[in-house]
Amino acid sequence: MTPTITAFAHSPDGGRGLARDMRVRWALEEAGQPYSVRYLSFADLKEPGYYAQHPFGQIPSYEEGDLVLFESGAIVLHIAQQHAQLLPEDPNARARGIAWMFAALNSIEPPIWEWTMATVLESDQSWYEQRQHILQERVRARLEQFSRRLGQADWIEDQFSVSDLLVITVLRILKESTLLAEYPNLSAYVARGEARPAFKRAFAAQFAAFTGQVPAD
Amino acid sequence: MTPTITAFAHSPDGGRGLARDMRVRWALEEAGQPYSVRYLSFADLKEPGYYAQHPFGQIPSYEEGDLVLFESGAIVLHIAQQHAQLLPEDPNARARGIAWMFAALNSIEPPIWEWTMATVLESDQSWYEQRQHILQERVRARLEQFSRRLGQADWIEDQFSVSDLLVITVLRILKESTLLAEYPNLSAYVARGEARPAFKRAFAAQFAAFTGQVPAD
Repeated sequence: MTPTITAFAHSPDGGRGLARDMRVRWALEEAGQPYSVRYLSFADLKEPGYYAQHPFGQIPSYEEGDLVLFESGAIVLHIAQQHAQLLPEDPNARARGIAWMFAALNSIEPPIWEWTMATVLESDQSWYEQRQHILQERVRARLEQFSRRLGQADWIEDQFSVSDLLVITVLRILKESTLLAEYPNLSAYVARGEARPAFKRAFAAQFAAFTGQVPAD
Repeated sequence: MTPTITAFAHSPDGGRGLARDMRVRWALEEAGQPYSVRYLSFADLKEPGYYAQHPFGQIPSYEEGDLVLFESGAIVLHIAQQHAQLLPEDPNARARGIAWMFAALNSIEPPIWEWTMATVLESDQSWYEQRQHILQERVRARLEQFSRRLGQADWIEDQFSVSDLLVITVLRILKESTLLAEYPNLSAYVARGEARPAFKRAFAAQFAAFTGQVPAD
C-alpha cells in the first residue's frame, strides 16, 4: 500500500530540504518504498480536519491505510520497522539505534533548533547578539560531544541506519552557519549522508515541490 | 536480569521527581521490573568512562547485561517492548503510541523546557520579562492543542500507556507554575498519572535518594 505524507506547499526553507518531510522522504527512498505527497498551505494546517490527523498542526503526517501517524521521528521508526536494512537486526544493536534516533531529536536538535529560531524570531530584539553567543555555545557543546563519539567512523554504528539519517537531517540545519565547519568530521559525515542516492532522490523531490514543479498525486 | 539505571546523587530538582530518571523508574514500576540505581555526582557525569556509556554525559543511562542505552524516551520504549501492557498490542495502535512518545519529547517538551531553563538561566538578564512572555505563549500554544486532543478522556488512547507516562512527566515540569492550571483537563490528567501506584513507588524511590536515604545497591 502506497503511503501518503504531507508537506508544505510552499516550504519556508527555500527548498533546502530542512523541513521535516525530508526525513520521511529520505527514509522511504532508502526503503525503496514509493509514496504520495499531499501538499498543504499554512492555512490548511490549521483546519480542524488536519488537526484530527496531526494534533499539533504540523507537517509531516503519514497515512497508510487505516494508520495515521505524526512526528517525523515516529514515522521514520515505523518505516524502519517495516523494511530491513534501516536498523540493525540484532536486538541490542537495534535498541541502541533507536536510542540514537531519540538522541538526534532530543539531545542534538533542541539547542540547534533554539539557536535557529532565535536567528529568525529575535533578530530585531535588543538582546539578539548576547543570546546568540549563549545559544551558539550550547550548540557547540553538543557538537563537541557528538564529534568525539563519531570520531573518524563513517556512521554511528557499523552500517548506515535511520539513526544517521535523523542526526544528519538535524546537523544539516547548521550547514549555512560556520558552526558545523568547526567540526570537520561532522561536516564530512553530513556530506557522506548527502551523497547517498536515496538522499539525492528525496532532496530532488522536495526541491521540485518548492520550485512549483509539484508532481501530481 | 535486573537492569541498572543511573541517576543524580544530588538531584537539582529538590526531589520533585523532575529529573529524567523518574520516567524510567515509573516505566519499570509499571512493568513490575526490579532495578538497581547507580548514583552519580556532576563530576562523575564528565568522566570519560561515563561518556562511553552516555555520549552526552547525562542521566539516566540503562544497563542490562551487554546492553547499554541512553535517552529516557528510548529506555522507556525498550522497557515497553519487553513487557506487555505498556503499549497496545495492535500494530497500528502501537505505532500511534510510539508517535505520542516522540510527541511528548519533541513537540510538547521543547517549549516547556526552553521556558523552564530561561526562568533559571536568564533571571538576571535585562530581557527576562519580555522573553518570559514570549516563551509562556509558546507553552500555551502547545498545551491548548494537547488539551483539545485529550478532551475529557482519561488517557490518550483507551488504556494508560507509556505515551501518557512520557507526556505526564513532561507536563509535571509546569506543576509549580500557573500555566498547567489554565487547562483543567490537563491538571486532572497529570493528577491521574500521579495517583497510579507505580508512579507513587517511583516518586518515593527518587525522593528517598534526594533526602539522602539512598538504598544500597
